[in-house]
Amino acid sequence: MKKIFTLLAVMMICGIASAQFAGVMQGQKEEPLPEGFKPASTNTFLSQYPAVNAKTRQAMFRVVAPTAQKVQIDLSGKKYDMTKDEKGVWTCTSDPQVVGFHYYSVLIEGVAVMDRNTEAYFGSNWESSGIEIPEGAEGDYYRFNKNIPHGQVRSIYYWSSINGLERHVNVYVPAEYEKNTDKTYPVLYLVHGWGEDENGWSNQGHMANIMDNLIAAGKAVPMIIVMPSGDIKTNSDVRGASGDVTQIYVKDLIPFIDKNFRTKTDRQNRAMAGLSRGGFQTTSTVFANMDKFAWMGTFSGFFGMRGNEGIENAFNGVFKDAAAFNKQMNLLFISTGTEEGTPKESVEALKKHGINNIVYHESQGTAHEWLTWRRALNEFAPRLFK
Amino acid sequence: MKKIFTLLAVMMICGIASAQFAGVMQGQKEEPLPEGFKPASTNTFLSQYPAVNAKTRQAMFRVVAPTAQKVQIDLSGKKYDMTKDEKGVWTCTSDPQVVGFHYYSVLIEGVAVMDRNTEAYFGSNWESSGIEIPEGAEGDYYRFNKNIPHGQVRSIYYWSSINGLERHVNVYVPAEYEKNTDKTYPVLYLVHGWGEDENGWSNQGHMANIMDNLIAAGKAVPMIIVMPSGDIKTNSDVRGASGDVTQIYVKDLIPFIDKNFRTKTDRQNRAMAGLSRGGFQTTSTVFANMDKFAWMGTFSGFFGMRGNEGIENAFNGVFKDAAAFNKQMNLLFISTGTEEGTPKESVEALKKHGINNIVYHESQGTAHEWLTWRRALNEFAPRLFK
Repeated sequence: MKKIFTLLAVMMICGIASAQFAGVMQGQKEEPLPEGFKPASTNTFLSQYPAVNAKTRQAMFRVVAPTAQKVQIDLSGKKYDMTKDEKGVWTCTSDPQVVGFHYYSVLIEGVAVMDRNTEAYFGSNWESSGIEIPEGAEGDYYRFNKNIPHGQVRSIYYWSSINGLERHVNVYVPAEYEKNTDKTYPVLYLVHGWGEDENGWSNQGHMANIMDNLIAAGKAVPMIIVMPSGDIKTNSDVRGASGDVTQIYVKDLIPFIDKNFRTKTDRQNRAMAGLSRGGFQTTSTVFANMDKFAWMGTFSGFFGMRGNEGIENAFNGVFKDAAAFNKQMNLLFISTGTEEGTPKESVEALKKHGINNIVYHESQGTAHEWLTWRRALNEFAPRLFK
Repeated sequence: MKKIFTLLAVMMICGIASAQFAGVMQGQKEEPLPEGFKPASTNTFLSQYPAVNAKTRQAMFRVVAPTAQKVQIDLSGKKYDMTKDEKGVWTCTSDPQVVGFHYYSVLIEGVAVMDRNTEAYFGSNWESSGIEIPEGAEGDYYRFNKNIPHGQVRSIYYWSSINGLERHVNVYVPAEYEKNTDKTYPVLYLVHGWGEDENGWSNQGHMANIMDNLIAAGKAVPMIIVMPSGDIKTNSDVRGASGDVTQIYVKDLIPFIDKNFRTKTDRQNRAMAGLSRGGFQTTSTVFANMDKFAWMGTFSGFFGMRGNEGIENAFNGVFKDAAAFNKQMNLLFISTGTEEGTPKESVEALKKHGINNIVYHESQGTAHEWLTWRRALNEFAPRLFK
């Protein structure tokens, strides 16, 4: 009897297990981080690097690549040459960064790859490395707060008749949803941008933390937030036009959500917003379905007119009769970062034309990036369903 | 007025948008795939490659790396040299593969990186590329079935007092959970293996499809499945011993789940199972907390004794009194793939010793891999809570 179990012990504990654990143990032998640097919150749990300095807002990177001849970091539009030590470990330190979330790549011999020290963030249509540059107290609104109740993000697959495929959607329900089982809730459809996916608002955007904080503080009404994919996911015919996405939302997704969640189903209780291309999809979807939505937001959403047309004809003439638009739409929230293209003139023109339910928000010092959109959601959500 | 909107249109539609869309459009110009090959289901939605052939079970890979001198694919223990064409696109075709899910890497100049054409699957403690080799009708049990109701996987953060951190956990609730708001459910705690994380059972394991299919067919009791992280997620002190994970499960997670879900809270309605190191964590946790669990499973879980000890002393003597063990534990499910280390002798010895509630399952032709564990869950779940 003893023999059997000894054999098993050797085979299982020493053989398979220790080979696996060896990689982990290496992590424990790493040098301590330089003064002022901490592992980024975007790292996988074993990774000390990339490390960030909250004061200088610099990032340090580390790539193990003994066989490579040239390794660089591509971050915020700048390529940093890395330096190799005698063990084949490459390192570099970045310039100060804007706080918030940034995508970056490792370039190995000029080939852009993911830094496997970070979690994967889907951007530019592939899995990317990301780094969170910490913010001081101002960032509290998007951080996890252990002292308040938390909503849930539910990962759900629904069948799309338009698409002929199962589609993935994430649905946030507020903390109280599970307790008040007779209560129904208003719904915000919240769309990601180009090259990202339905996980972007959760992973890069920290939307659950933002909403938990707003709702717990009584600033926002408890609501359901539906985060669909803004792309046509077929492997064969790549991408359809935005119009096709609108059809999926209106014909497949909204009925599915209204059937499977305790929603308020009238237009006064349905909103839509999106960032970047998702803002563009929001205008396309809402303006063509005014019977279904009464609130909308477009965050860095290329909010302008199509082609050489005036307000009268823009968006199929939705603004032509300003009084009618004002009556139907409770909120047209338009936001941008100050360091990216601004729709300010367009907003002014609309106001002059008599559209009076516009809220215009500028995120100071940020570009076409996630801090702009975290701030936008934080400004937008409290204005809904009131 | 016209001028303003024309300017905006040029800036927004042509300027920002078309630069972004250019990358997408490239995808549409790709050559058609060779006869018999289809994009793998594990790809990102825009990627034609890797492509898989359901008949030959081969995979074709494609990496764009004009500046690299040497590119390989590392799959199932073999390195394939890729061939570069005049545009800098590297390709190769693999040998026939076992069906199911496999991790793989791209080697650029010998540096292992992720193939950014696939979704990210966390394995070996970093984000990895994965490829699903399709199975015929036998694989129906783990595929999405549009004709049955679907459960939800909920992404949840809870506060761990043991860990001093928020921790992520995924919780599957059966399709009927939302409708029967007075009903309580039994709970299975289901743990991943070494180097993977709490998303493994959903992403690599297709557990929601397996459970939806079993429950819809009346083969399994509707149950809640909690999929925690089996690692201590701190960035500073890397990993604790399994014992620490057990404390997190018992003191933080189980009370949190029982508070926030409609669970049956007695031991007859609580099970635990895990794969590989998760099986090892299951034995550690359950045998030390027999007052909390009455069902357990260890899938490829290094099920053997520690050190040179007999059955009497193994696992702190839990098997010493066979009658007592039989009375307490309704099910001890032990499984393995036939192409990996087998605990068969150990199982036989336990049976001879009088442990009579063992179910032993072998997955034919599979090794330490996800098809083994999909099959194990499919065999294990129907035996629970009956």
